[in-house]
Amino acid sequence: MKMTEQHADALKDLLTWRRDVRHFSQAPVSPKHLDQLRAAMDLAPSVGNARPWRIIRVLNPALRAQVRDEFSRCNAEAASDYSSEKQEKYLKLKLAGLDNAPEQLAIFTEIDPSEGHGLGRKTIARTLEQSTAMAVYNLWLTARALNLGVGMLSILDPTRMQALFETPAGWQFTAYLCIGQAEFDDDTPLLHREDWQANTRTNWETR
Amino acid sequence: MKMTEQHADALKDLLTWRRDVRHFSQAPVSPKHLDQLRAAMDLAPSVGNARPWRIIRVLNPALRAQVRDEFSRCNAEAASDYSSEKQEKYLKLKLAGLDNAPEQLAIFTEIDPSEGHGLGRKTIARTLEQSTAMAVYNLWLTARALNLGVGMLSILDPTRMQALFETPAGWQFTAYLCIGQAEFDDDTPLLHREDWQANTRTNWETR
Repeated sequence: MKMTEQHADALKDLLTWRRDVRHFSQAPVSPKHLDQLRAAMDLAPSVGNARPWRIIRVLNPALRAQVRDEFSRCNAEAASDYSSEKQEKYLKLKLAGLDNAPEQLAIFTEIDPSEGHGLGRKTIARTLEQSTAMAVYNLWLTARALNLGVGMLSILDPTRMQALFETPAGWQFTAYLCIGQAEFDDDTPLLHREDWQANTRTNWETR
Repeated sequence: MKMTEQHADALKDLLTWRRDVRHFSQAPVSPKHLDQLRAAMDLAPSVGNARPWRIIRVLNPALRAQVRDEFSRCNAEAASDYSSEKQEKYLKLKLAGLDNAPEQLAIFTEIDPSEGHGLGRKTIARTLEQSTAMAVYNLWLTARALNLGVGMLSILDPTRMQALFETPAGWQFTAYLCIGQAEFDDDTPLLHREDWQANTRTNWETR
């Protein structure tokens, strides 16, 4: 298929206006939109076509509360690693939308899937994690196109998440996603607004 | 910014028609398009805004030849791991576009960048690799929107790639990208056509 200028412009809008959302309204995500998000993951590239992403949709309030507790614990530990000035900034950052996000997904990677027959991961086993990251990103961009926000959470202990969700032995915790309507449209990413880390420009060294 | 149905449709086209391209024409990529690809990476999400991707544009023919040799060696090793029937199929797969692709990028991840101040990666250090994967994917989708093909190569030994490019100590090899015009428009992904691995549908388990 021949892409047009409209495709390039639309993609640029989506990449430019994608945000890591932490403030959600409680408005539910429609079943139609959920289907579109699920279908988008199926279109992700994966090494050897192994499709190693494994998804748990977390609805049970008790489980959600346990994830929140885990986040609070890991976040407090992370904060304690910073010296006082940076710690103060850290504690001001809202790093999770766990309280309100109507949809929450626990994302895992199957580290030795039979699908793909090992192709392309003998030299770099991490390629499976790269595939899952790209599948998450497919969902993220599709959500943005549907005017839904996604927050990706990694301040969680993988071993404890695997235990919490009683996952099969080969599943490695990758990330936790909060999904819903963003409470506000954000022209400045939070880590800029709070003066945590400004952008640096990608440099292509030439050899 | 409020996204429209056109955004969602354009994104769906791009996700649906993205391919892992192995057959390139030698037609050069214009400087304007190269700039757009480079700029797209800057828009990728990254943990703590750490932006850990490090890019080397490989122009030197001697270096390219060494990458090709490395690929041939790793690929032969990988093939030898399969039993005869699967090995025959493996050897029929064209897994690299290294001979013709006019642009080639070696992608690394800085594993302990000062940018981002460690935010979000105390619990999962792999989040940095996830960020690089998403930056690569930004480039990949933008290339597709510009009717350029990208092939992502992971059948390479990370330690040897780091040595070959004499990278700083903190750089971990992530992938090697071939970029250029695809020789043909591919309606069926290669791993399907060659009966290596069919698609499986992403299942969302509910808890």
